[in-house]
Amino acid sequence: MKAEYINPFIASLGTVFRTMLQCEVKRGAIHLKERSSPNYPISGVIGLSGLAVGTVVLSMSEQVARQAASTMLMADCQEVNADVLDAVGELTNMVAGRAKAQLEELELSVSLPSIITGQDHEVRFPSNVTPICVPFETPWGPLTLEVGLAPVAVPAGT
Amino acid sequence: MKAEYINPFIASLGTVFRTMLQCEVKRGAIHLKERSSPNYPISGVIGLSGLAVGTVVLSMSEQVARQAASTMLMADCQEVNADVLDAVGELTNMVAGRAKAQLEELELSVSLPSIITGQDHEVRFPSNVTPICVPFETPWGPLTLEVGLAPVAVPAGT
Repeated sequence: MKAEYINPFIASLGTVFRTMLQCEVKRGAIHLKERSSPNYPISGVIGLSGLAVGTVVLSMSEQVARQAASTMLMADCQEVNADVLDAVGELTNMVAGRAKAQLEELELSVSLPSIITGQDHEVRFPSNVTPICVPFETPWGPLTLEVGLAPVAVPAGT
Repeated sequence: MKAEYINPFIASLGTVFRTMLQCEVKRGAIHLKERSSPNYPISGVIGLSGLAVGTVVLSMSEQVARQAASTMLMADCQEVNADVLDAVGELTNMVAGRAKAQLEELELSVSLPSIITGQDHEVRFPSNVTPICVPFETPWGPLTLEVGLAPVAVPAGT
């Protein structure tokens, strides 16, 4: 995927965390996602389609998920329940949605988020796509943003 | 989601397995996905968007994934490697793609597939969506199809 496509997602994550969660995030070094690299225990996944197809993954520790949900819901989420998982899905949706608006030329639409749980789960991309991985530090712990986008093949003659 | 929306996905899975894998599948009882029900160790996940947003999950054992990939690639896939995971993503893509064509009124497009691995992973849907779960038996072992679709809210006045 083109490197410049990652910037709207990075900016969007910062804005969503700042405005929705009153939380400043600190970005680490951008790198290509390794073939096999386990995700944090909770990952929000959302699909993109349009003139490109893609996937956005927001992966975080249980603590980051609970604190984010507590702030969004103005409640004290002590455990990872359905409300916390919904909040992770909604955050993923907002990050993808804001970025989409800055990538007008791709005419993207976002799918329903799904939320993956499991200590050793890993979200993999098809091997013809090279996803970009961006680590962030938050006051609550680490999270990663992964974005993979591939152009849609246009049939010859159209 | 409307119950009739599941039928194109069920038919599509049967056709894809029959034509691509020369494999007859046997459908079990359709049910709503429980809030917490672990998936098989390999799940293909793909997003849908259009006049509805949704997610399709195809979850299977390592054996089903290896045998399916072996048939698709005309090779003997002894272990779960990148080729096997790509095959799971491609199967998920084909099942969603064929079903989409039968749900023209929803004007759906499909995203990039992602492939989730991990023994105890679980793919969850937002709690305002009730996914339908369809178990299948294959000669290689069990697999499940999960589909969640939600209408897109249209802004008032449009």
